[in-house]
Amino acid sequence: MEELKKKIITEGKALNEEVLKVDAFLNHQIDPVLMKQIGKEFAEQYRESGITKILTLESSGISPSVMTGLELGVEVLVARKRKSLTLQEGLLSADVYSFTKQEQSTICISSEYIKDSDCVLIIDDFLANGQAVLGLMNLIEQTKASIAGVGVVIEKQFQKGGEELRNKGVRVDALAKIERLEKGKVSFTDEEVHI
Amino acid sequence: MEELKKKIITEGKALNEEVLKVDAFLNHQIDPVLMKQIGKEFAEQYRESGITKILTLESSGISPSVMTGLELGVEVLVARKRKSLTLQEGLLSADVYSFTKQEQSTICISSEYIKDSDCVLIIDDFLANGQAVLGLMNLIEQTKASIAGVGVVIEKQFQKGGEELRNKGVRVDALAKIERLEKGKVSFTDEEVHI
Repeated sequence: MEELKKKIITEGKALNEEVLKVDAFLNHQIDPVLMKQIGKEFAEQYRESGITKILTLESSGISPSVMTGLELGVEVLVARKRKSLTLQEGLLSADVYSFTKQEQSTICISSEYIKDSDCVLIIDDFLANGQAVLGLMNLIEQTKASIAGVGVVIEKQFQKGGEELRNKGVRVDALAKIERLEKGKVSFTDEEVHI
Repeated sequence: MEELKKKIITEGKALNEEVLKVDAFLNHQIDPVLMKQIGKEFAEQYRESGITKILTLESSGISPSVMTGLELGVEVLVARKRKSLTLQEGLLSADVYSFTKQEQSTICISSEYIKDSDCVLIIDDFLANGQAVLGLMNLIEQTKASIAGVGVVIEKQFQKGGEELRNKGVRVDALAKIERLEKGKVSFTDEEVHI
């Protein structure tokens, strides 16, 4: 997706070989126009897949998910990272290990919002080691609903998440694929750009 | 806002005199069509206010904010919640006490995303005791930017936040105003409805 790559080039910051900071438009500050384009792009890719629900994780996955949900005409379920006081009974949960934060957390959804007949599209901002996506898949696998695929805004292809998911037979779509990061330099799968 | 009230009546749950559960369309599951209408409504109210930035708090404030940002053509800054913060450069922070969760947390934004000339609209999902909004205002008050007003999706008027903010001279707009809650019953400021 060209608009996204352009944004990564002009406003992203490659801090080192692992971290791409996209706080300017995706994580901390959000560009609603870009999010709308991202939503259209995901919707285009999954238009014929019979999606009935989008599942994402708070909080960076929410914006692209809501825009995709608007395009596809389906609701968005946001998995929470910890249990809240008003959400207890009928809870599905999964453990997720974050390599970035080096900590284990529990994500959860209320089972009442997933029907047996649901066909779920999982959306997240980043795909790196795939732990968050595997946790979201785990939640759905505890129900009778099916998973149509996984849409991520940015995939760090040099980390193992994408390959692991595809090897499992899961459909994975990334709007920007990053082959390599170095301080100040992002290499997309098909081109190398200094930022 | 009639569509919102209808949604609260049909899908909300008044658990007791304090808690209105709107997990079905606002907090946990998100209805993107309703969010778009909410965005249009806030944009309508602040169209002439010269808004240059929206500030909200993760994660339930993100959807209404992004839809409002899309309508107004401005970016959305999402304050993050952290339990404890080691001092980082360029970070503005404020303490917020949550009566719901009964815990103190720190919220923060990166100062690079607020310019002196910014005119900020603060958006959140609920206004109850006003702690979150006061924390967001505190962040902006540490800069030279101005605050145009506060837009909340649902105001619990029987709690003191709204009055406190209006007494300070802050413009506060709520799309649904709840006068009273009882188990199974929501009373809006102008009508009483059983849900």
